[in-house]
Parts: sequence; structure tokens; C-alpha cells
Amino acid sequence: MIQQLAIVGVGLLGGSVAKAARAGGLARRIIGVGRDAERLRPAVDDGTLDAAVTDLAAGVREADFVLLAAPVLAIEGLLERVWRAAPDGALITDVGSTKRNIVRAAECLAASRPLAFVGSHPLAGSEQAGYRVARPDLFRGATVIVTPTEGTELSALKTTTEFWEALGARVTTLDPETHDRTVAAISHLPHLIACALVDGALRLEPAALELAARGFRDTTRIAAGDPDMWTEIFLANRDALTASVEAFRRALDDLRRVIDAGGVEALRAELARIKAARERLS
Amino acid sequence: MIQQLAIVGVGLLGGSVAKAARAGGLARRIIGVGRDAERLRPAVDDGTLDAAVTDLAAGVREADFVLLAAPVLAIEGLLERVWRAAPDGALITDVGSTKRNIVRAAECLAASRPLAFVGSHPLAGSEQAGYRVARPDLFRGATVIVTPTEGTELSALKTTTEFWEALGARVTTLDPETHDRTVAAISHLPHLIACALVDGALRLEPAALELAARGFRDTTRIAAGDPDMWTEIFLANRDALTASVEAFRRALDDLRRVIDAGGVEALRAELARIKAARERLS
Repeated sequence: MIQQLAIVGVGLLGGSVAKAARAGGLARRIIGVGRDAERLRPAVDDGTLDAAVTDLAAGVREADFVLLAAPVLAIEGLLERVWRAAPDGALITDVGSTKRNIVRAAECLAASRPLAFVGSHPLAGSEQAGYRVARPDLFRGATVIVTPTEGTELSALKTTTEFWEALGARVTTLDPETHDRTVAAISHLPHLIACALVDGALRLEPAALELAARGFRDTTRIAAGDPDMWTEIFLANRDALTASVEAFRRALDDLRRVIDAGGVEALRAELARIKAARERLS
Repeated sequence: MIQQLAIVGVGLLGGSVAKAARAGGLARRIIGVGRDAERLRPAVDDGTLDAAVTDLAAGVREADFVLLAAPVLAIEGLLERVWRAAPDGALITDVGSTKRNIVRAAECLAASRPLAFVGSHPLAGSEQAGYRVARPDLFRGATVIVTPTEGTELSALKTTTEFWEALGARVTTLDPETHDRTVAAISHLPHLIACALVDGALRLEPAALELAARGFRDTTRIAAGDPDMWTEIFLANRDALTASVEAFRRALDDLRRVIDAGGVEALRAELARIKAARERLS
């Protein structure tokens, strides 16, 4: 059992971890850390947090488990401050959508003071944001990728894995580089493409958007995601995203070549191959 | 009230029209026409059809309202045969996903024998197909685009519009060219893009697909659509699709330029603009 769980950033993800940890009795005390006391109050009022503070150092000073649930570019900056304030023996993890930059920053800090850090990325976001949409079952059945390196202690990896599993998640382990390439392909690229689809339709047939049927709505739902969050993700994972866009472009070009050639059988074979791959997902 | 409704092709769309017309008492008799008697039997057995025939001419001979619910390339061929067999005064419509080619074919036929044709396109497809997924409420709240031309008689347009409205649909009127450009942007392009997303991920990170979260699943759901149907649609609407792909590409290139430039404010402004456009949809 965690004695004191400090959650830095009490929005959708941080708030849902707090609610799930409270519901599951995973921590004796849960402290929320945020920049705005006003916005932390609902989580104290509803009993999810035992206390809320705006001073990061005070919030993590007695924590044995620290979760950084801020936007991805902010986490790098927070790490340094947490590293100075957290007690010996504390385990730190995060929810950042990219992992290479964060894990590398933690390894630099660990060279001067050996605290345990294990990167985490729950695939449980939403196009909605904020504590008001947090819910205790957000991680039930969701995948959480944890990203240990050669320097990660096995006990820290085990504790982190068990933490997410206790919230109902399935945990998968990838190294930080593979993680970033993977989420570029399955998360960041689809988001970018959804944005381009909306924008392309706006440019070509603005009136068409009003007729958009279920296919268009589903395909572009994620284009309504939080611009702040996605700005950070796209910038943090620029290299892997570029590689994904190139693979996508080649796939699109190949499909267009088959369409332009006009052969019914060839096109049907391509679409059947892709349909089969998509159906293995669900 | 329709005296005899002939539905050529009793799959998801044709079957749903039959069920809805039966439930709403829109037609005295409903005849199904298909190539395979075996596959028509369930719709007779469950009382949706009064009769099912495999002979097209026999099926439409006494019909005052004919609905062509075959795949889009097949409809052009069917039109000619229906034109020869249908009685004077019959009104013909269809459910084809592209309209220029079909409306043009009908206008050629009308030059020699003046039957009424009004093109229709219900935006109510699904990635599933066949009579077993047909349902009487498929058109409830759905949009149906009807595509009259200057030569269309107002009474035929009115009857067609009222028919779809009686099934619960909202009817929008576009000329056939605007229709084809519109559906290229909001339906055919998203489908092509979803296919390219699946294929791009397969090429780059085949293992990544297993981790695909909700964003990827939603964005690529339509890639599991019927390959036969989409082969015909892509080939029938090739020109408008190409224009849509080009608009999409320009939008994607512009977004990538903003990401590569690395400016937080510029990227956030772009994503916020697109989010606002997407949110006007739902």
C-alpha cells in the first residue's frame, strides 16, 4: 500500500488516477498538486483528495509515490523540481504521451541523486479534458505502456506495473524509442490526419461539413482534442511523427495509383487486405 | 400511397427501405428483385416482401415506384433494363453513392422514353452489409441527398422527397456535380484515408496495431467497409476524389510545416481553429 500518493496535475488523467486509487484503497493519503487552488477544490470537496497544494515541493515532500500528470512538455520541467523535493526512496512515474525526452531527463537527474523513475503512458485520453470528466473506471481495460530502460531497477518496474494493474489496466512494456514510434503510428498520426481531413473539407467544400455522416464524424472525432495538449505532443514527438506521416503518404500514394489504374480486381484486393488488418483490431 | 414498390437489391439499404416502408404502410405491395432467390427468402419469410423475383423485368413491370439499391456501378446497367420494363408513369430512384454518372445515364434514356428519374443518396451506410443487418429505423434522422437537374419534373422531385421523409430522413437537394464533390470530401476521402492509416501503420509498426487505442479505432473503423462496394465508389467518383485528396494533402502539408517550424503559438492556433470547425459538427 502507498503511504502518500502525490499527483501533480489533477485533470482527466490525474483526477481519474486519484479517484481510482481512492476507490480501490491503494493509498493511505492522496495529495493533489496544481497551479490553481480554485481548480483543485472540487477534488477535495468530493473526498477524492485528502489535501490540495499549489507548492510542488510541499506536495511531494512526504510522498513515496509521485505521479506527474501534466502536459508532456511540462513534465520535463517538473521532473527537476520533484527530484529536489521528493524524499529518498520515492518512486516517480508520469503519464506523458511521449517517453524518450522524459526518460532521458530522468536519467540525467538520477546520475546526481538516485531516485527511481519509470515512465508510463496510459492510452486512455479523451477529446475532453479537466477534472470534471475524470472517472474512477477510466483505466479499466485500458492499455498502459511502461517504458523501463537498462538502468531501471526491477522493483521499481514491478511497483509501477502493479499500480496500473490495480487501477484495472493492462500493462505493456516497451523501450522509450519503440514507444515513441508506436504511438506516433497509432495515436499522433491519426490525430494529425483527422485535423487535415477537417481542414481539407473546410477548404474544398465548407458547406459539405454540415452533411457529414457517421463515417466522417468518427474519423475526425479526435480532431476536437485539446489544442494545448496536442501542440505539446506533436512538438515533443516530431521525429517519430514525421516517419509515420511518410509511411502514411506512401500507403496513400499506392492506393491512389491503384485507383487511377482503374482495375477493379487490384483495388478490391488492396481494400480486402486492409479490411482484414483492421478487423484483427476489434 | 405507392401501389407497388419494387426494390432492386435487398441488402442493407434496400432491405431497410423495405422494412421501413412495410412498418410505415407506405406501399400496398413490396416486391424484391435480386440475383439469388435463396438470399431473398428471409425477407419474404419475415413478411417484409410480398414477393421476391430474380427476373428484373417481371419485378418492375407493375411498379409505380422503383428503387435501385444495387452497388453504384451496377445501377447504370440496371437503369437501361428498368427503363424498358417499367410501366408508363413509374418513378425511379436509387441509392447510389455517386450521382453524375447515374443521372446522366437516366437523362440519355429519358430522351427516348419519358420515365421519371430522381437520383437519391441516403447517407446511412455501414461497414456491415446484407439483409441480415437491415433495420426499419436506418433512415430515421439520416440525411438523404436528392439530386434533381433542370430536366426533373417538380412532381417527381416532390414524391421522391416525401418518400424519404416518410422513412424518417432529412432530405437535402444538391445538383449531381456538387453532390459528387461533397461526398468525395465527407465520405470517400475519409474512407481512403482510413485505409491508408491502417496500411501505413502495418508497414511501419505492425506490432503497434495491437496497442491501438480508441483514437485509432474510431479513425479507422470505416476501413473495415465492404471492399466490393468501395471499389465501385472509388472508381465511379475518381475525379472528385482526386480533388479531395489534393485538398487534404495541402492541409496536411501546411500542418506539418507549422509543426516543423516548432512554434507553440502558431501550432496551437491552427489546432484550435480546426477543433472549432469540428465541434460545429456535433
